[in-house]
Amino acid sequence: MQVPIVENVLKLNDEIAEINRKALKTSGVFTVNLIGSPGCGKTTLLEATFQRLNDQLTIGVIAGDLTTARDAERLAQWSDHVVQISTGKGCHLDANQVRQAMQNLNLDKLDVLVIENVGNLICPVGFDLGQDVKVAMFSATEGDDKAAKHPYLVQEASVILFNKTDLLEYVRFDLDLFRADVVKLNPHTPLIELSAMNHDQAGFEKWIAWLVQNAPHALQYGPA
Amino acid sequence: MQVPIVENVLKLNDEIAEINRKALKTSGVFTVNLIGSPGCGKTTLLEATFQRLNDQLTIGVIAGDLTTARDAERLAQWSDHVVQISTGKGCHLDANQVRQAMQNLNLDKLDVLVIENVGNLICPVGFDLGQDVKVAMFSATEGDDKAAKHPYLVQEASVILFNKTDLLEYVRFDLDLFRADVVKLNPHTPLIELSAMNHDQAGFEKWIAWLVQNAPHALQYGPA
Repeated sequence: MQVPIVENVLKLNDEIAEINRKALKTSGVFTVNLIGSPGCGKTTLLEATFQRLNDQLTIGVIAGDLTTARDAERLAQWSDHVVQISTGKGCHLDANQVRQAMQNLNLDKLDVLVIENVGNLICPVGFDLGQDVKVAMFSATEGDDKAAKHPYLVQEASVILFNKTDLLEYVRFDLDLFRADVVKLNPHTPLIELSAMNHDQAGFEKWIAWLVQNAPHALQYGPA
Repeated sequence: MQVPIVENVLKLNDEIAEINRKALKTSGVFTVNLIGSPGCGKTTLLEATFQRLNDQLTIGVIAGDLTTARDAERLAQWSDHVVQISTGKGCHLDANQVRQAMQNLNLDKLDVLVIENVGNLICPVGFDLGQDVKVAMFSATEGDDKAAKHPYLVQEASVILFNKTDLLEYVRFDLDLFRADVVKLNPHTPLIELSAMNHDQAGFEKWIAWLVQNAPHALQYGPA
């Protein structure tokens, strides 16, 4: 009995996701669904991205969290286009929550919208939000087995970010094993290794270049 | 329409959890439901715990993971009482999965059973498995906001472990803020700060003392 009901919920979610997708496309917004563990550095990456691109692109953020607005508060220091979704006990964002959050954003002003999903490597993967791409984020302090343990996320991601490279020297992490797992699961997706904390690094610039390249007005700007 | 169905699922889960609980009590097993982020150090803690207590207590582990058996393989080097549950896309363990795994364990031989839940701070909290206690695990590399962001886990935990103290010096982490958040949410629960990697530390011995104290044959053993 359970299965058809879950399917209905997902079907409804997908229908709303399509509505979101159309609205975002109409406004020329490139939309990223950013998925990673609690504490992998999603918000820090976005802070650094604002700092780097604020004079080139207008970036909005929809930040999902269970109870606090801490991420949104951090990001609101960089942008007027930040909306918080509190999910309560909910372990992922769904399309309807994003749809409601979108009503608080002026989409026509945005070049890029990043939906910072709830910190969770599992549940967010199954819910289409209307994004253009999913971006998966792992980090050096989580252990080198996390790509292999979360194959669905790796397979659905258009870019895989590996954060906290600055901490690699202090932890037990087999980077070659991690890279091999990623290639095995998703051979054609770029793996960008970076440190969001030390955001002047070459890896961070690869992320910036990728984002700018995909933003609708890329030709006007281009990376530094 | 959705809510009653979810309630039924939870009700059934709770009924099976009670069956598990009775079986574990009958066999004199102290059972821990260990919940933490992906990569917070659950498996490393258990490896260190085996190493420290193997000649004093017989510890079994039920390890939950989406797809790989890597945790169980690591732990099987230390104990014959390790069972793997592969959850597929499932974001938490449920009581029925644990019940099935228990059939592969000789409960009468065990003093302690640790159920290493799927790496996830949200979904596992709502599912009773039949454990005596929930233990929450956070770590220094996840950011100091994770207790505040996951109040339900903090409130339901009988012990809160804070791991990776050896990395505190390399990351941005306000330990006083984290401690204050924990106290605010759950004033009476011990917060044990430790490094599972450097398991000779004082904090690790607090965890060992707590575990031994709660194990049924504690009086015979006692911590070192």
